[in-house]
Amino acid sequence: MTAVWDTPLTPLAFLRRSADVFPDKPAVVYGERRLSYAELAAETTRVAHALRGSGIEAGDRVAYMLPNIPEMLVAHFAVPLAGAVLVAINTRLSSQEVRYILDHAGAKVLVIDAALHPTVAPVARELKTVEEIVTVVDPANPGDGSGSGVTYDDLLARGHDEPLPWSVEDETACISINYTSGTTGKPKGVQYSHRGAYLNSFGEVVHSGHTFDSVYLWTLPMFHCNGWCTPWAVTAIGGTHVCLREVRGDAIWQLIEEHRVTHLNGAPTVVTTIMRAPGARELDHALTVTTAGAPPSPTTILQMERMGFRIVHVYGLTETYGPYSVNQYQRSWDDLDPEERAARQARQGVGMVCADKVRVVDTEMNDVPADGTTMGEVVMRGNNVMLGYYDDPAATDKAFEGGWFHSGDLGVLHPDGYIELRDRAKDVVVSGGENISTIEVEQAVVSHPAVVEAAVIGVPDEEWGERPKAFVVLADGKSATEDELIEHVKGRIARYKAPKAVEFVEELPKTSTGKVQKFELREKEWSMESSRIRG
Amino acid sequence: MTAVWDTPLTPLAFLRRSADVFPDKPAVVYGERRLSYAELAAETTRVAHALRGSGIEAGDRVAYMLPNIPEMLVAHFAVPLAGAVLVAINTRLSSQEVRYILDHAGAKVLVIDAALHPTVAPVARELKTVEEIVTVVDPANPGDGSGSGVTYDDLLARGHDEPLPWSVEDETACISINYTSGTTGKPKGVQYSHRGAYLNSFGEVVHSGHTFDSVYLWTLPMFHCNGWCTPWAVTAIGGTHVCLREVRGDAIWQLIEEHRVTHLNGAPTVVTTIMRAPGARELDHALTVTTAGAPPSPTTILQMERMGFRIVHVYGLTETYGPYSVNQYQRSWDDLDPEERAARQARQGVGMVCADKVRVVDTEMNDVPADGTTMGEVVMRGNNVMLGYYDDPAATDKAFEGGWFHSGDLGVLHPDGYIELRDRAKDVVVSGGENISTIEVEQAVVSHPAVVEAAVIGVPDEEWGERPKAFVVLADGKSATEDELIEHVKGRIARYKAPKAVEFVEELPKTSTGKVQKFELREKEWSMESSRIRG
Repeated sequence: MTAVWDTPLTPLAFLRRSADVFPDKPAVVYGERRLSYAELAAETTRVAHALRGSGIEAGDRVAYMLPNIPEMLVAHFAVPLAGAVLVAINTRLSSQEVRYILDHAGAKVLVIDAALHPTVAPVARELKTVEEIVTVVDPANPGDGSGSGVTYDDLLARGHDEPLPWSVEDETACISINYTSGTTGKPKGVQYSHRGAYLNSFGEVVHSGHTFDSVYLWTLPMFHCNGWCTPWAVTAIGGTHVCLREVRGDAIWQLIEEHRVTHLNGAPTVVTTIMRAPGARELDHALTVTTAGAPPSPTTILQMERMGFRIVHVYGLTETYGPYSVNQYQRSWDDLDPEERAARQARQGVGMVCADKVRVVDTEMNDVPADGTTMGEVVMRGNNVMLGYYDDPAATDKAFEGGWFHSGDLGVLHPDGYIELRDRAKDVVVSGGENISTIEVEQAVVSHPAVVEAAVIGVPDEEWGERPKAFVVLADGKSATEDELIEHVKGRIARYKAPKAVEFVEELPKTSTGKVQKFELREKEWSMESSRIRG
Repeated sequence: MTAVWDTPLTPLAFLRRSADVFPDKPAVVYGERRLSYAELAAETTRVAHALRGSGIEAGDRVAYMLPNIPEMLVAHFAVPLAGAVLVAINTRLSSQEVRYILDHAGAKVLVIDAALHPTVAPVARELKTVEEIVTVVDPANPGDGSGSGVTYDDLLARGHDEPLPWSVEDETACISINYTSGTTGKPKGVQYSHRGAYLNSFGEVVHSGHTFDSVYLWTLPMFHCNGWCTPWAVTAIGGTHVCLREVRGDAIWQLIEEHRVTHLNGAPTVVTTIMRAPGARELDHALTVTTAGAPPSPTTILQMERMGFRIVHVYGLTETYGPYSVNQYQRSWDDLDPEERAARQARQGVGMVCADKVRVVDTEMNDVPADGTTMGEVVMRGNNVMLGYYDDPAATDKAFEGGWFHSGDLGVLHPDGYIELRDRAKDVVVSGGENISTIEVEQAVVSHPAVVEAAVIGVPDEEWGERPKAFVVLADGKSATEDELIEHVKGRIARYKAPKAVEFVEELPKTSTGKVQKFELREKEWSMESSRIRG
């Protein structure tokens, strides 16, 4: 037993408390299903026993591959309650990617949605460590029946209701491993601690402004950085989780109305989905959207606010439990004109209240001047930085070089201390010796009223080495020419940053988490070049 | 340097962040004085250097004896920034009490308000460890000039602006020592840790519902449990501290109006002061009052809510950083009739979101049944329990018996898991073998419309051993007879609990922190008895 004055920090304590304090309050809503906090705790306890009954021991990895259904939420508590480590796998990965992650994590059990069986079936026999595959059959999409074998009900039947301690012996123990999307190289397993998850939950409560009346809609995948710790944060505050199997605009609007949703999180693409859905309208109650994953354009922020949404813009990476920094709103911005204010809000801001100060450094780890123009790498440290990559000390050492986590993101530091991302290190366009931020160019393109989305990459240029090229999705029924867009950009940012070409596309290639896959665009553009200069 | 993923928890980080993020925002307001967050951090840094320049080394104790003026707020950051331990002394103590505390804590430096010099002057020469007394001259009350010697300006002149790290090496290090009021025996030095102060600050932000727009009025003495950690909590959220030298009803109402105060804390006596002030009126903006120190009567809660205040009722002790439990409001109470709802809100509730579960136990440390009637002792543990009593291992061991902190408070556990205090262990009335809760009797007496305040103690009774007696303060212009009050009580609680006698008094004897001093009342009543049965 620890000292009287020391309880190791763990998000398990949040469910313990909410089950004690709000036993009858709706914890989970999914279609017609309802789980009170007492029921959520009971099911969590049962699953934890069931996992132990299935041979799971302390420190073992348990993989889950589910959409945002109640069983996925339960996993965030049941797996650590069993003393194990949750590995939540992106549901959109390929069979080979899933196989790689399961093998690398050494997962003993895989819990999978029936509809996702086709992904795992081709590799099921090759898996090195998985001893059992448990299938969750969601009536909303029961799959094709190929996922026979052990069902979730079979698993539950192995459990029982004996209380387990909602605690952990060592707060720095690993609670989950989240694999990076691996756009370059193999996915890496990012390890979160109980302590980090606990403290980040508080940060999220404070910055998203959660209250004991929060109703949270699950538009953000729980497999993405454990939903930015929101399974734990919303449970801490005794809010209601509204689950959502598929991110569809119409379903979102229906749930917002039906349950008076107060909060949701998502990448800007989710925000765009909400905004462009057929039922989109002005809100008649307060709804906070916490957004990250890619910098939202000022144009999007402005449109959302006009519809009545409150936007909280955060920034982070898988390695930082999701959000690390927040665009802390300043009352002095109230007086700015809307466009200027939205531009401020598009910055990535400052460390959250639970975070250390975020830095922008040069290659020698010196802080860049706070001039809003000198680019450097964004680095972080502290309680919302991962424990390291699972079973990959070399990658961990590299990421932690100099005692700071290296984000690989390039940004500037403004005179007010707010950081603003300019690019992924590997995405920046080097043109005639000048670094051009593709994000800056993209925002200039998107500010044109006919444009919905844009992605900018560097393309070969005989004179300048590289120059930007924009891939543009136009709004339904709107039109614009290449020249018109280039002129529009030149009117907003330095002329040398304007694209040399614009290509109109139906949609942009995206990762399963909604990030634009620039490497695919580059692949095409650079394939005819003999000297490929970046990966 | 600690690991990349580990930053020791300390409230110093809160000031670091707010100075970075809100440099120009008003951090402190006092009369005409204003300190921005940048200025607060600068003054804090200067004082920390000055303390070091005055010979303060890591772990040394620095005593402060000030009202709620800006220098006292600065102390909560400057002393730990210097690596030292803050000892905030109750400004209403006697010379001998202050001498005892300074000697026991081994304070090297004492910073004192000029107006409080008369308290220290008589014992100044006897102090064993104090090397220097620094006088703060507040123009609002400069004292009689007797506090010559080193002034606060002299101290500041020893400081400079070189940045110091807003961090601590070991988060379990002591940040402050708060002496108990010592109604029985000598005051004991309750040690808080950086970690506990940090986590409790989050708890306070969540439960009092602080936002980045909070304006906090300092009605609660900062010398009392470090103002329940509010110097740190309000700074974490970047709110504005409105300082207040004296708790006067008219001044409070004027500041509420002038600064649009959103939050204040205080014992029920402070709440009564606000309610009964000449300028009292209905609020035209939201104001949350977090109250503790003694159980507020349902009658008071009801009256405050009618004036537009939101009441958050918390409970704790000096040993638990102030609040440990909170009366967590339940939406289902909305439907109760106002009196029944106020009765629920008068319960001490459940552990805060940062706390462990609070227990009510019998003498064998078994949980009492959750029946709302079986009395037991309230015990707590975890991150908001003190490190122990300074230099008093015997008292610490006794308080921590069985691995839990023993509050000495008696209470019941309701079926909904909420605790309700029934008495201090030493205050309970034992009548014919039955325990009678003096709080329950007091609440019944106060529910009479003519009564403002009441205190109940046990008095000798030949037949029953003890029976309750009530000391009652009547409202201005109202009257009631002894019989009338006794009958009123009998109509509300079990007849055997009704007082055998009622004594009308002008005011009740109170400690400097507003708690009724029942021992003084008992002293008088029992002085003629040969067999005194309690201390």
